[in-house]
Amino acid sequence: MKVLVTGGAGFIGSHVVDRCLADGHEVVVLDNFSTGRREFIRAPLQHPRTTLVEADVFIQPDRVTEAMQGCDLVFHLAANADVRFGLEHPRRDLEQNTIATFHVLEAMRAAGVNRIAFASTGSVYGEAAVIPTPEDAPFPVQTSLYATSKLAGEGLISSYCEGYGFQGYIFRFVSLLGERYSHGHVFDFLRKLRANPNRLDVLGDGHQKKSYLYVGDCMEAMFCALENATDPVNIFNLGTDEYVEVNDSIQCICDHLNLSPELVYAGGDRGWVGDNPFIFLDCQRIRSLGWAPTRSIRESIVSTVEYLMSESWLLEART
Amino acid sequence: MKVLVTGGAGFIGSHVVDRCLADGHEVVVLDNFSTGRREFIRAPLQHPRTTLVEADVFIQPDRVTEAMQGCDLVFHLAANADVRFGLEHPRRDLEQNTIATFHVLEAMRAAGVNRIAFASTGSVYGEAAVIPTPEDAPFPVQTSLYATSKLAGEGLISSYCEGYGFQGYIFRFVSLLGERYSHGHVFDFLRKLRANPNRLDVLGDGHQKKSYLYVGDCMEAMFCALENATDPVNIFNLGTDEYVEVNDSIQCICDHLNLSPELVYAGGDRGWVGDNPFIFLDCQRIRSLGWAPTRSIRESIVSTVEYLMSESWLLEART
Repeated sequence: MKVLVTGGAGFIGSHVVDRCLADGHEVVVLDNFSTGRREFIRAPLQHPRTTLVEADVFIQPDRVTEAMQGCDLVFHLAANADVRFGLEHPRRDLEQNTIATFHVLEAMRAAGVNRIAFASTGSVYGEAAVIPTPEDAPFPVQTSLYATSKLAGEGLISSYCEGYGFQGYIFRFVSLLGERYSHGHVFDFLRKLRANPNRLDVLGDGHQKKSYLYVGDCMEAMFCALENATDPVNIFNLGTDEYVEVNDSIQCICDHLNLSPELVYAGGDRGWVGDNPFIFLDCQRIRSLGWAPTRSIRESIVSTVEYLMSESWLLEART
Repeated sequence: MKVLVTGGAGFIGSHVVDRCLADGHEVVVLDNFSTGRREFIRAPLQHPRTTLVEADVFIQPDRVTEAMQGCDLVFHLAANADVRFGLEHPRRDLEQNTIATFHVLEAMRAAGVNRIAFASTGSVYGEAAVIPTPEDAPFPVQTSLYATSKLAGEGLISSYCEGYGFQGYIFRFVSLLGERYSHGHVFDFLRKLRANPNRLDVLGDGHQKKSYLYVGDCMEAMFCALENATDPVNIFNLGTDEYVEVNDSIQCICDHLNLSPELVYAGGDRGWVGDNPFIFLDCQRIRSLGWAPTRSIRESIVSTVEYLMSESWLLEART
């Protein structure tokens, strides 16, 4: 099988590339390297079954169509994943997530490819009325431009399934952790603690409850769904059966680093405007296909800290 | 108050314009006249409190920002309302509905306007799991590009409410009927019967169940919500407490015209790919504010037939 991975040099995308190669597939890595990193795909690029296409899904739809030729499956993972700063540049989520997803779907239609796996987000549940939140939770009201743009992507995909006979796999992730993680709260905390081990500034009141999933477990879940779910539209929450408070996460990081910084809270019950103070997904649907996570959230946090300490160029490279 | 109405020369928009003038407001009518009609706003254009801006919301966002100056409220009704042919031009719903709504919101932000009323659709419930369908029905899977584009518009609006302090009124309409109706099944049937009174081709099997609302009742409902609902995001289904089958609707039209055509069904349980065979909304939320419809669906169909027969230029003008 030939698989195109948009955002293939990113955190999640590079793991998908590794997995596809390990499974014997041919892989087209498509990335604009705005947040993707060549270091993450160094090994795949040596592989004869890998092709790299450096292109931007929003700006260069024609290059996506070209790259799509002969593919059997598309993992559409390229996105603006910067949830927190949507309000500072409201156009970005619309362009890089909603319109970019439209470009991917049109490229597929032009190239005769009709199977797509898509990285959506648990944020589409907004301030969820039911927790843990199942896939058919009460129709939520969107609170962030990021989630809005991902939900629009979901709708485009399911409409293409209905209208053009596509088959879609939509994954509503919690936040992921693990190797190549390079964006999010563990990253931010580590960088701050490297700059000043005696003080840690924390968004909100530290009681925000979040769920995390190990990226390796996420890979198993996505491929389990692709192998076992056969509907035209297949929507799955992906997460663990637990959540942690931001304070728990800080404790875990500080214990591992043997630090006891003063914690300085920004205050309020959420990290930023549009943040959801409690994300915890009901994952019975994917569990019923036989998948289960292998790592607890704390284990994932520790392995992420270890990864970032061993790859400290990542902590240094970012501004 | 100064009110901007996008799509102000359209079926619904022109009624909003009339109502705003009757209530003593200043009105800016913005329309690109792609489907809007100068005939619908002939009286308002004579009025000193009316300004006309001929502009396209998707193509000319700067003109929308200019038109927005000094406004207190925006009715965003401009849209591609052509639900049925989305698959023939998939870009149209994205551009004219989703991106156009983004342009309206950005124009509002630039001009310091923060109150918006938006025409969404009962189609966002897809193949609804609960009928009659309340606003917090189970999270639906989108089946049409039209509904997807409207849901994206809803999400943009609620995110602007959360992020920029806007106040939003989102109306999920059933199909509307009444004066100036010029698009939809009654229109199509009448035109076919004028061409051939002895035969009527019907999409689907005629058992599709749909709900309709009289445009005058819709006006009362929207203004009732604007006066009485005070949340940052206010979402209302707008419909009647009944539904009809397409066959009932045909009977009603034929009885009124005194015709007995042969009915020729295309077959299948829906009118087109992505059509929802049963739309029936639970409108308790808007009813609890004191609003109630004054016309039954049958009365609305009859008044629409009478309107179109008296304004037969509309039946002739369209292709």
